[in-house]
Amino acid sequence: MTTATAIIDISTLVTNDPSLGEGPLGLLQNAAVVIDGDRIVWVGESSKAPATDNQVDAGGRALLPGFVDSHSHLVFAGDRTAEFNARMSGRPYSAGGIRTTVAATRAASDQDLEENVARYVREARRQGTTTLEIKSGYGLTSQDEARSLEVASAFTDEVTYLGAHVVPPEFADDPAAYVDLVTGPMLDLCAPHARWIDVFCEQGAFDGDQARTILTAGAQRGLTPRVHANQLTQGPGVQLAVELGAASADHCTHLSDADVDALAQGDTVATLLPGAEFSTRSRYPDARRLLDAGVTVALSPDCNPGSSFTSSMSFCVALAVREMGMTPDEAVWAATAGGARALRRTDVGRVAPGARADLTLLDAPSPVHLAYRPGVPLAAAVWHGGTLV
Amino acid sequence: MTTATAIIDISTLVTNDPSLGEGPLGLLQNAAVVIDGDRIVWVGESSKAPATDNQVDAGGRALLPGFVDSHSHLVFAGDRTAEFNARMSGRPYSAGGIRTTVAATRAASDQDLEENVARYVREARRQGTTTLEIKSGYGLTSQDEARSLEVASAFTDEVTYLGAHVVPPEFADDPAAYVDLVTGPMLDLCAPHARWIDVFCEQGAFDGDQARTILTAGAQRGLTPRVHANQLTQGPGVQLAVELGAASADHCTHLSDADVDALAQGDTVATLLPGAEFSTRSRYPDARRLLDAGVTVALSPDCNPGSSFTSSMSFCVALAVREMGMTPDEAVWAATAGGARALRRTDVGRVAPGARADLTLLDAPSPVHLAYRPGVPLAAAVWHGGTLV
Ligand SMILES: [Zn+2]
Ligand SMILES: [Zn+2]
Repeated sequence: MTTATAIIDISTLVTNDPSLGEGPLGLLQNAAVVIDGDRIVWVGESSKAPATDNQVDAGGRALLPGFVDSHSHLVFAGDRTAEFNARMSGRPYSAGGIRTTVAATRAASDQDLEENVARYVREARRQGTTTLEIKSGYGLTSQDEARSLEVASAFTDEVTYLGAHVVPPEFADDPAAYVDLVTGPMLDLCAPHARWIDVFCEQGAFDGDQARTILTAGAQRGLTPRVHANQLTQGPGVQLAVELGAASADHCTHLSDADVDALAQGDTVATLLPGAEFSTRSRYPDARRLLDAGVTVALSPDCNPGSSFTSSMSFCVALAVREMGMTPDEAVWAATAGGARALRRTDVGRVAPGARADLTLLDAPSPVHLAYRPGVPLAAAVWHGGTLV
Repeated sequence: MTTATAIIDISTLVTNDPSLGEGPLGLLQNAAVVIDGDRIVWVGESSKAPATDNQVDAGGRALLPGFVDSHSHLVFAGDRTAEFNARMSGRPYSAGGIRTTVAATRAASDQDLEENVARYVREARRQGTTTLEIKSGYGLTSQDEARSLEVASAFTDEVTYLGAHVVPPEFADDPAAYVDLVTGPMLDLCAPHARWIDVFCEQGAFDGDQARTILTAGAQRGLTPRVHANQLTQGPGVQLAVELGAASADHCTHLSDADVDALAQGDTVATLLPGAEFSTRSRYPDARRLLDAGVTVALSPDCNPGSSFTSSMSFCVALAVREMGMTPDEAVWAATAGGARALRRTDVGRVAPGARADLTLLDAPSPVHLAYRPGVPLAAAVWHGGTLV
């Protein structure tokens, strides 16, 4: 007997470890998982589970690694309901876009920002997301970016400095000066609070040269690059991401053959964010093309109040299958192991001895149900570091 | 003081009553609703709410009528995960389709069927659906159809006899004999347990003449028609539905101009079921065309284990906005008041004195968030006949 907890009678267990089970998802039937503290200590057949003090009966339901969401913009204030409503209703609206959220975020108190992040982290956790990257990017002053990162740090280790989200209005006439700020004093203030640096490399935001300057400056301060790349146009973002050894190129909606080749030959993950295409009525990225070329694909909801205000990884799995040519198995892998790759983590996104006890029990007998039952909240129980959410 | 409950501090209240508030949704800001027993007894400004024993603080969130789902197939047994997985993975699979579910349903015990319905009704309620029509259609023998209706009757008054779902295998060589059964002995056994009669009018199921025979026979026994019409092809279903005074023509995916005209001139509701198009990768119905022609539109998830295994009305609202040209307001109306029209109910789908206390509190300040936050489980509290679910 130990003080561990055994989760028994799991109909289908997704380990994402081909050495433990069948196929790329490493599937085990009639399985059990034992957790102790914040770690998984045993995985195997339910009938052979070791005796433990505590036992949870999965009742023939499926268990998978908690979702790993490698891309979110949760440090914000304000709301863009009116802009969304106008866009989807075909009514004109003088949208300030990201700048609307920047103004509200700058005006918000630290406490307001913290409460907002707490709320959406809780919402994501209840839906099965156990690892969550959080970006800054709505402050766009040194102080506001730094406090955004500090707020994010209270909720996750995966904090990303996105001072280069857009050029703020006060630098509209001199974007080069804003790049100097982002790579200079703002970086000085922000680097201690972040693991990653990100740039929105796109027409109207930052071009390839600016993005290279910013990402290189961040890398010199120990921040690893990730890039908002090729969302709206076939820009230089994806190839720059691969060249600089970025952990991930995010969006990847408009890709040339050379972009796909670069991703296939490098070790940059392509993180696809179909919530953004859903909520802006845009064309979806072609996951099938990437997978067939051998690219590693991750999925994320891209939660933000402008272009994709969803925190639901299940929804992204369903969209990936409906719209992007992924099989249910590939989408489930991308939402768990894929996200872990995009964050260069080996302790999450899999169910194996030594990994974190981050687990999602579905109210369904198989992980296929995440696509088979779209829109239904299927997370029946979620363990985050061994603790029930 | 009364024993009633006041729900106060509602940021946006959807009444669906233009005499109570603004626009087609009858929107009221800073509102309160008082319920007593299973009825709504007062609606107005929060600051003017009468004193009551019990008070619920909505905390600046939105309240709307519970969703009215006029189309579900919940009396079934078995699972079609493998078929779904193969279809979405591009693998061949000798799918039995509806017949697979018919075999499993016939083999199931009454208790199994009841537990299955209870499970999905509970799931729908938690997501904000307070009125739910349930069809038979997986029994296809007199006994199995009748027991399906009896099972459904334990959960709802909106029970639909769908003996004419498909021709079962044992009648494959003599479909006319099956129509005789459906309009004869099966109808005798089923009519006492149902309010509605439905036919799947489609190539491979029942043609226009058969559908007319079946619906007319049902009407003579007091069952009001509703029709699965024009899902896969431009068949005769929609015009037949209007001609026979059906409450609803469901699917309406492939419509001629004459079909749209018929719907606009008749009083048959067009119930759109985008979950089916989502899960079969089919083209969506054109809600905009129907609305512009003056047709009354309802939305439903069409919950069934084959073509649309979702119970989420929110998901349908989001799809209707993304894919079908509906505004968020139109989609919210269709999911509440539209469903009520499709069931010819005036006591649900609206928030007004005298209506049923069927209410959904959203974890959001406006009903637009149902489309703005796709996939997120937003139902924070649900009252069904005045009782918290
Ligand atoms: Zn982003
Ligand atoms: Zn149906």
